[in-house]
Amino acid sequence: MRTLQQKIDNKTKPLGALGELEKLVLQIGNIQKTLNPKLSNPTILVFAGSHGIDGVSAYPSAVTAEMVLNFLQGGAAINVFCEQHDIALKIIDAGVNYDFQSQSQLIDAKIAKGTKNYLHEKAMTVAELNLCFEKSAEIVETVFQRGCNIIGFGEMGIGNTSSASLIMSQLCGIPLANCVGRGTGVNDDQLQKKLVRLTQAQNNHPNLTDAKDILATFGGFEIAQMCGAMLAAYQKNMLLMIDGFIASAAFLVAQQIQPSIQENAIFCHLSDERGHQLLLEYLNATPLLQLGMRLGEGSGCAVAYPIIKSAITFLNKMANFDSAGVSKC
Amino acid sequence: MRTLQQKIDNKTKPLGALGELEKLVLQIGNIQKTLNPKLSNPTILVFAGSHGIDGVSAYPSAVTAEMVLNFLQGGAAINVFCEQHDIALKIIDAGVNYDFQSQSQLIDAKIAKGTKNYLHEKAMTVAELNLCFEKSAEIVETVFQRGCNIIGFGEMGIGNTSSASLIMSQLCGIPLANCVGRGTGVNDDQLQKKLVRLTQAQNNHPNLTDAKDILATFGGFEIAQMCGAMLAAYQKNMLLMIDGFIASAAFLVAQQIQPSIQENAIFCHLSDERGHQLLLEYLNATPLLQLGMRLGEGSGCAVAYPIIKSAITFLNKMANFDSAGVSKC
Repeated sequence: MRTLQQKIDNKTKPLGALGELEKLVLQIGNIQKTLNPKLSNPTILVFAGSHGIDGVSAYPSAVTAEMVLNFLQGGAAINVFCEQHDIALKIIDAGVNYDFQSQSQLIDAKIAKGTKNYLHEKAMTVAELNLCFEKSAEIVETVFQRGCNIIGFGEMGIGNTSSASLIMSQLCGIPLANCVGRGTGVNDDQLQKKLVRLTQAQNNHPNLTDAKDILATFGGFEIAQMCGAMLAAYQKNMLLMIDGFIASAAFLVAQQIQPSIQENAIFCHLSDERGHQLLLEYLNATPLLQLGMRLGEGSGCAVAYPIIKSAITFLNKMANFDSAGVSKC
Repeated sequence: MRTLQQKIDNKTKPLGALGELEKLVLQIGNIQKTLNPKLSNPTILVFAGSHGIDGVSAYPSAVTAEMVLNFLQGGAAINVFCEQHDIALKIIDAGVNYDFQSQSQLIDAKIAKGTKNYLHEKAMTVAELNLCFEKSAEIVETVFQRGCNIIGFGEMGIGNTSSASLIMSQLCGIPLANCVGRGTGVNDDQLQKKLVRLTQAQNNHPNLTDAKDILATFGGFEIAQMCGAMLAAYQKNMLLMIDGFIASAAFLVAQQIQPSIQENAIFCHLSDERGHQLLLEYLNATPLLQLGMRLGEGSGCAVAYPIIKSAITFLNKMANFDSAGVSKC
């Protein structure tokens, strides 16, 4: 680590003048245990799942399946950003309420056609949660085998800011009102109703403390599979790109299970979704970007990726003071 | 503008969910008067100049010429970031105290071998300032003729945070102590000395109000040429990428001369240099990135460029709700 810091400091720039890029490359070099870190075959996994809860989103729940089809046709934000940066994109049916035709771009990891409604019962069983972890670990294994060492996690699931808010509130001990936001864009009335409904859900499941139990209780399948994928990617010592609010909630669970996972995490973007800033503060995490986005899909990872690449690039390509004949201070 | 907003809103994402990217593409579309904006032949100009003032930097003034040679050899941060993003890079000798050999990558716009010491006299004459504007306008004309419609401005000049601080203090009416920072990294003692020296300089030039007069008084040649280049690029209706503290001080002068120039400006990065935040607030400008960098060279422009490109990309490539068959809320 000290040698890596020296390498950074010998680049032709004032000490520390590349700010967050220097911290990033120090983190990456430490993870990869090398003075010449690299990013190979960057990949973003987008997990999709339907939710049993209703009345919490501005959009109908059918949009989850419709957006998966949009991903497969290449028309969504995450498609065009991944294409821009040569990031491989994999779409995973973690549990969408739709029968997709089998196709090469879609990974079938369907647990069920949506979670149960956590107003009345747990969103998923322990067996289903374990299956989420198993299936997502297999997906990460495949991606790893293809030479990927940096992986981003995105999601699609109408209703999933609600799950994320409940998970956050329960695990961080932060009042639900500070965790619940507008999601896809509910108005003031709908926001109030969402909060009432989620408070009721929280009250219906008292005394939850175990992270996996909380995840199983509030779902969804896409959040559980993201969490499992993060844990599996950490086992492979990959770099983890963490997106916005929902991905951070999945990370929060992963971090409760495996605290050292945070060493490998890059928090890509501060979402405009209420709750995310508090969640990042709870995690003591600094986001790379603050672009006011709140889209999910891993969009924050894709947009932040060139910044991460810039960190690698300066370390590997810039001249030293000596080689360039530049005087030091 | 309303049609462009509709095009943005019809993309398969919640209203406003791409945050700053949506504002960016709205700005760019309005400038280019089109629903299909594009970025062509992005170019960064790095202006270098030596300063007559001494005792204000952590580095010897010879570093200005040494870094120009480093730029020409491709070893500086701006080189590797421009290469990463396919941005054309031009280095301009605006007034470096060194005799460079003629070479294709270096544009000779030398006014003199450094400015005068503004502790005792004006950094440059009015004739020299006008020459700065003329020469930089010619450079921009050439770049424009090559099909560039987005241009970034960077600089190299040991001592130039001092000029920028004086320009900012004088034009914004902000006390010098709030405008003077550590530059390349002076320690507490040196910072105190820098402030004393610059306060003396400010006192030695009382009653300055005219923006061009202030620029001529405190220099440097690279700042004056950046200012002239910005004005010329605005005349060509190009997009202007504004880098950190020194580039923003050049922009401040340009904006005093031509207030509407701000419509075409994208503020790329909030520098870690003290004063920049206040300067951006004075300009009512929101920076795209906040990565704690303080390097100059146009590095903030280069690192932010892919974000600007993402804004164009989503508008031009994402599917609509209708074409993708996704339900609206």
